[in-house]
Amino acid sequence: MSSLTYRLYHHPLDPPSRRVRLALAEKAVVCDFVVEKPWDPSADFLALNPSGEVPVLALEQSGERQILADAQAICEYLDETHAAETLLGKDPVARAEVRRLIGWFDRKFQNEVTVPLLGEKAMKRLTNSGEPDSQIIRAGCHNIHGHLDYIAWLTERRNWLAGDALTFADLAAGAQLSIIDYLGDVPWDQHILAKEWYARLKSRPSFRTILGDHIAGFPPPRHYADLDF
Amino acid sequence: MSSLTYRLYHHPLDPPSRRVRLALAEKAVVCDFVVEKPWDPSADFLALNPSGEVPVLALEQSGERQILADAQAICEYLDETHAAETLLGKDPVARAEVRRLIGWFDRKFQNEVTVPLLGEKAMKRLTNSGEPDSQIIRAGCHNIHGHLDYIAWLTERRNWLAGDALTFADLAAGAQLSIIDYLGDVPWDQHILAKEWYARLKSRPSFRTILGDHIAGFPPPRHYADLDF
Repeated sequence: MSSLTYRLYHHPLDPPSRRVRLALAEKAVVCDFVVEKPWDPSADFLALNPSGEVPVLALEQSGERQILADAQAICEYLDETHAAETLLGKDPVARAEVRRLIGWFDRKFQNEVTVPLLGEKAMKRLTNSGEPDSQIIRAGCHNIHGHLDYIAWLTERRNWLAGDALTFADLAAGAQLSIIDYLGDVPWDQHILAKEWYARLKSRPSFRTILGDHIAGFPPPRHYADLDF
Repeated sequence: MSSLTYRLYHHPLDPPSRRVRLALAEKAVVCDFVVEKPWDPSADFLALNPSGEVPVLALEQSGERQILADAQAICEYLDETHAAETLLGKDPVARAEVRRLIGWFDRKFQNEVTVPLLGEKAMKRLTNSGEPDSQIIRAGCHNIHGHLDYIAWLTERRNWLAGDALTFADLAAGAQLSIIDYLGDVPWDQHILAKEWYARLKSRPSFRTILGDHIAGFPPPRHYADLDF
């Protein structure tokens, strides 16, 4: 039987893609990576995932292929199939807390911070769809403070966001924040506790994969990959 | 030891709340219900869930209380603690497919259909925030066709949306569609296969809970609760 191979279709500026890349690295899964533009999916990619969304994980073994789409579906799959060090939590209540926080960052942070900032500052340029709206950018810059305060509140009570151990909740939050940090828009100096949590996350080997991201014509600020930011 | 009690904070026009109500009924969990307005959360409710979102499930036993928020977190918890008849699927690949479809309906259908139609036709009225925008309503009415076609495509290949058995994928889709049906905006007659699937879902005892919904000043159309629609 040939060995199982993993291929991830992703985009470097897509937070759910980043969450899965972090999860693959935390689980030490060897994977190859294909960049796909979700705003202009190829026909081949649409055949894999009719929603056109990244991330998509293709598994292949002995000529048989499984296609998994949706970051949450992929992360749960990775945890079920690499259960030794769970990133979900050890009992149903702990897992519910991890999943609640994933929802917080993937839905609330995404809508209140990432969509306004990434949408205006990057996606409009990448998709040639007009000028950034400074009012929307201001709203995103305003909204991020509440989320950084919430991270501080959690980490005053817990070692990581959902409890003693690192979980998918930290990866979901880190995936979102690392995108905003790539834009240079995280006010770290006003949020020391959130910065301490992020520094711990950023120094994990799994984070190297996303700190190396460099979008053509759209370089990150100097502190982006710096562990001592 | 006193018995475990369940209380769900929800809103009848919130699709994730409906998904959890259906899940509780499928799992035969006895629960009491509190309606909460997510657009104007009470201070007591914000203390339970700082995001202000519904649904929230409060569990109480012997004076100890657990608070679970986020529909996906709650559904996974219910499945883990009432595992006899799983609504998730029997192996990791099957569960990944269920979770992919949950993401499809909770994110894609929600953004493309529910936000435009519910947002313009109901939420603006309930929150006193202006007149419905007919262009946005037209977009929602246009977008629903692709989703009903996708349901047909799936049910031509499978008994239920994710496979042989009913899963959370059907409940997620039914939760969204039942809201649009409450508005009278599902073009069932143009989508016979999707209608057949929905008729099967609608006739399950679990669905009775949401067919009885009646929002003051906002009655459903006559066919809404009719099993022979």
